[in-house]
Amino acid sequence: MAVNLYDTAYALETAIRQSNEYVHLKQMYNEVNADPAAKQMFDHFRQIQMNLQQKQMMGQNISEEEVQQAQATVAHVQQNEKISRLMEAEQRMSVIIGELNQVIMKPLEELYSQI
Amino acid sequence: MAVNLYDTAYALETAIRQSNEYVHLKQMYNEVNADPAAKQMFDHFRQIQMNLQQKQMMGQNISEEEVQQAQATVAHVQQNEKISRLMEAEQRMSVIIGELNQVIMKPLEELYSQI
Repeated sequence: MAVNLYDTAYALETAIRQSNEYVHLKQMYNEVNADPAAKQMFDHFRQIQMNLQQKQMMGQNISEEEVQQAQATVAHVQQNEKISRLMEAEQRMSVIIGELNQVIMKPLEELYSQI
Repeated sequence: MAVNLYDTAYALETAIRQSNEYVHLKQMYNEVNADPAAKQMFDHFRQIQMNLQQKQMMGQNISEEEVQQAQATVAHVQQNEKISRLMEAEQRMSVIIGELNQVIMKPLEELYSQI
């Protein structure tokens, strides 16, 4: 890989790390982490979420009951203010990452749409 | 999004576009595109590949026969020198993109491994 590519990727890593959105997200994580009740709820929610994602990736069926259970858990954990603030911060960060990816992937997209 | 983030992402886009690996990949694409027989083979291969990916994403079963058909197509199209050079160039570019993503995603990975 050309040195320039690495350097620029590290510059982007630093820019992400210093962005308001990342600093805010980190704060929201720390607040959840520092609150045992919120942390337990959030860990439980993440576990359910990861199980579903794993099933989906492996092409396994997800039952109506599992979907409802997951939705109920989301609704439940979002009642915790620290968790709902964390989820909002995650959402904002994920939009930014998506935008960054769109910019970075443009050269390849152009190539693939050509053929 | 902070202006700095955008600027740095565009700098990375430019660095990718100017990298030896991208310039080479583009040349290999153009060579396949300029050769009607190679282009037709490659388009056919891409179509099979996309169908399989779509099935996989939708959690549909991929039969043993389809896997064998895909493998036979890969073996067949790779006998075309222009296509095999293009596939090598794609492979190198995809390794680089993977490395760049690892660098950029480090701040988020750190956060998620914390909790």
